[in-house]
Amino acid sequence: MRTLKLTLEYDGTGLVGWQRQANGISIQQLLEEALTRIEGAPVPVFGAGRTDAGVHAVGQVASTRLEHPIALDALRRALNATLPPAVRLAQVETAADTFHARYDAISKTYRYIIWTAAFTSPFAARYTWHVPDDLDVARMQAAACLVEGCHNFAAFQAAGSSVASTVRTVTRSGFVTTRQTPASFIGDHLDVARCLVYEIAGNGFLRHMVRSLVGTLVEVGRGRRAPESLAHALTSGDRQQAGPTAPPHGLWLLRVDY
Amino acid sequence: MRTLKLTLEYDGTGLVGWQRQANGISIQQLLEEALTRIEGAPVPVFGAGRTDAGVHAVGQVASTRLEHPIALDALRRALNATLPPAVRLAQVETAADTFHARYDAISKTYRYIIWTAAFTSPFAARYTWHVPDDLDVARMQAAACLVEGCHNFAAFQAAGSSVASTVRTVTRSGFVTTRQTPASFIGDHLDVARCLVYEIAGNGFLRHMVRSLVGTLVEVGRGRRAPESLAHALTSGDRQQAGPTAPPHGLWLLRVDY
Repeated sequence: MRTLKLTLEYDGTGLVGWQRQANGISIQQLLEEALTRIEGAPVPVFGAGRTDAGVHAVGQVASTRLEHPIALDALRRALNATLPPAVRLAQVETAADTFHARYDAISKTYRYIIWTAAFTSPFAARYTWHVPDDLDVARMQAAACLVEGCHNFAAFQAAGSSVASTVRTVTRSGFVTTRQTPASFIGDHLDVARCLVYEIAGNGFLRHMVRSLVGTLVEVGRGRRAPESLAHALTSGDRQQAGPTAPPHGLWLLRVDY
Repeated sequence: MRTLKLTLEYDGTGLVGWQRQANGISIQQLLEEALTRIEGAPVPVFGAGRTDAGVHAVGQVASTRLEHPIALDALRRALNATLPPAVRLAQVETAADTFHARYDAISKTYRYIIWTAAFTSPFAARYTWHVPDDLDVARMQAAACLVEGCHNFAAFQAAGSSVASTVRTVTRSGFVTTRQTPASFIGDHLDVARCLVYEIAGNGFLRHMVRSLVGTLVEVGRGRRAPESLAHALTSGDRQQAGPTAPPHGLWLLRVDY
């Protein structure tokens, strides 16, 4: 029985997210079904992060255990041949017997892409949040920094969540502006458009934590709230003190570190 | 009556191409319907290039004439509000009364993107041709150069085409390799993947000309034919001497010059 570490990319558009749901197709279900066909017996798969419906990933990690002696490269090819084009196995590696994608993760990095041009692009609409406002990036950056460190993030979780602890450590929280766009591989003519990229890394994330942080940071960028209000929201632990939750399709799980 | 120059971006996935067709939705139809709603009378639109079904554009140009006194910026916003997200007006400008997007074009530039990684990416599948072979780019480049100049491109047009002249002048034909990928705006972690970008500019293009050139160049890259065979195919004027037609979804209309 081998323990495997799977690294995945997926376009979350039209999927219900990582975790199995009754109301649609999840990445977990697709992967478990593909592995079960190879193993000839049920194969459970555990993901590092439970990305929501519509959220994308370029470095999601999952762990599983397999009896079948198939070679790693053949396994990757077999899985990619049966999975829909929206989901791809980038790497398949053997891991220590005790490896668990969720419990062993020491850090996760997410990016949230905001598309600030006046009109959205056909190539950006599925992958970025279109905010055609004049955002004050310096203010947003000042607010983003306040999130770094060990805090109680209760104000930045989905309503109705119940987790043992809402304390998390954020090791990086900040913005980069880039002229790279979803269509930059085609040419650099799209320089009227500008992506604002928020990157956050930490030891764990509550449900909707990144999206509610981004929703709050955009309010700061619009001048509707002060940068320091993020610190106040953190201290209060009150969801009402934070801003709205940004839409899922701008969010990307970039990498998981072990 | 104003003459307008419209610059468009579109994701060609699921559309029948630029030109009106009975069997599906074209960009021309979408644009004419949106303009007709504003004008209150039929508004014909002429495109610079008749891109095929599945072909994308970031710089298609169209011309039209409008009686309605709507301001240019309001017109762009109104069109973008009614068009589906796959089609976007990037620019709306007034042009000389005699301006015609097709007849006045002096040069068009296309790019064709080949995705050479072993597996395709969920973010590249719609926009690139996946060729997971070991392509000899130097050979392909040597062959691509032979296309530059004034030639009879009869061997590189769709079977059954009938145009007055198959002579065209190509001013640029070559490859660039880039680590920029459809998902590079997310991060540079995707460096296992590599896009091979073919760029061609010229005064006009026959139907399927770029795609049959690319199909032939990929045969050269695979070692199945010599670079010089492109020159022989050009001289022969025989479609049988050229390679297969590359799929439409890797092709992008980049810009039109006037």
